[in-house]
Amino acid sequence: MNFGILVFDDVEELDFVGPWEMLTMWRQAAQGPEQCLIVAQNPGPVRCAKGLSINPHHSFADCPPLDYLLVPGGQGTRREVDNPVLLAFVSAQAKNCKAVLSVCTGSFVLHAAGLLSGKRATTHWASLDRLRALGDVTVVEERHVQDGNVWSSAGVSAGIDLMLAFIASEAGAQAAGKVQHFSEYYPSGARYGDQAASPHAPAYLRS
Amino acid sequence: MNFGILVFDDVEELDFVGPWEMLTMWRQAAQGPEQCLIVAQNPGPVRCAKGLSINPHHSFADCPPLDYLLVPGGQGTRREVDNPVLLAFVSAQAKNCKAVLSVCTGSFVLHAAGLLSGKRATTHWASLDRLRALGDVTVVEERHVQDGNVWSSAGVSAGIDLMLAFIASEAGAQAAGKVQHFSEYYPSGARYGDQAASPHAPAYLRS
Repeated sequence: MNFGILVFDDVEELDFVGPWEMLTMWRQAAQGPEQCLIVAQNPGPVRCAKGLSINPHHSFADCPPLDYLLVPGGQGTRREVDNPVLLAFVSAQAKNCKAVLSVCTGSFVLHAAGLLSGKRATTHWASLDRLRALGDVTVVEERHVQDGNVWSSAGVSAGIDLMLAFIASEAGAQAAGKVQHFSEYYPSGARYGDQAASPHAPAYLRS
Repeated sequence: MNFGILVFDDVEELDFVGPWEMLTMWRQAAQGPEQCLIVAQNPGPVRCAKGLSINPHHSFADCPPLDYLLVPGGQGTRREVDNPVLLAFVSAQAKNCKAVLSVCTGSFVLHAAGLLSGKRATTHWASLDRLRALGDVTVVEERHVQDGNVWSSAGVSAGIDLMLAFIASEAGAQAAGKVQHFSEYYPSGARYGDQAASPHAPAYLRS
């Protein structure tokens, strides 16, 4: 099995490295997909939104057929929703994928590639209204949401929760538990400041 | 202010990208350190433990004096604790740092650099006994721990909790709250499988 994670300039770092860690821990600890691949349009380094520089494993030209595709978010998505080459790659790969996932504003890329119309989905709290304005997506203010074979999550760090839920769905709770345990993903639950109580906080924080 | 994150071959991806995201969100949203730097011994790509390839911003030779230094963990720490060049860099930089932090098995690097003797510290749950066996560290099974200007965290994902606590300490709860909000770090708290109840689970899970 091949699991691809798409990257592009100004991709948000934790959006893709959170799921990457869960994915590759799944491979190591619980027979997850053998090939875990970072894929970009062109060869060469990609500069992430906060300044981390990474070297993707594949360009579109040499990327193998993917069984799963995850699209992270970040400022770069505002450019990539108008990039016909990237959108064609996403929609062509998606046709043969068992599942397609997005983190944060990656959902806008899925939409632009024709994969979210008529579906339930979510995004970063600051972009929920923008996702609603697209008109054909049922926006759900949950930490992550599944609609058929399309999964999406809230912002940045939510990709970790998304990926664990996805692993549990694909491989069972014990497999997800191994990944959670080895990555020691037992968050403290600490809350700082009063932002979580603001009117802009996503609905899942109020339930 | 300069905040450096040390990397090396086989550094665990989320160990450093979790704190990196919080750190750079601090810079963007709440006046955090202006210079956020990924530093490695030599120029050129670094291959992380799970196969991600990154390009550090500085080598030891051109790294500016750091005000803060974070050392992540991963399989590579088992080699780096015997690397005199890396240990000399850590101990020389630490002399002028306001604080030094470790994530996961990065605590063994701090120890080898002479920074943990007589201090309270923690590490990944699977390495707690190994940290105790060093003999001169008071091992605390908490999510993260501060002893003076040395901070350490539990494994992999715990670096996110560490960094938010550190930001709250340095810049106040509202600053940490902004970082938490923009990175949407409101974990679902889901638990998968039964590993958290195992005898090998860290003590903070039983309290």
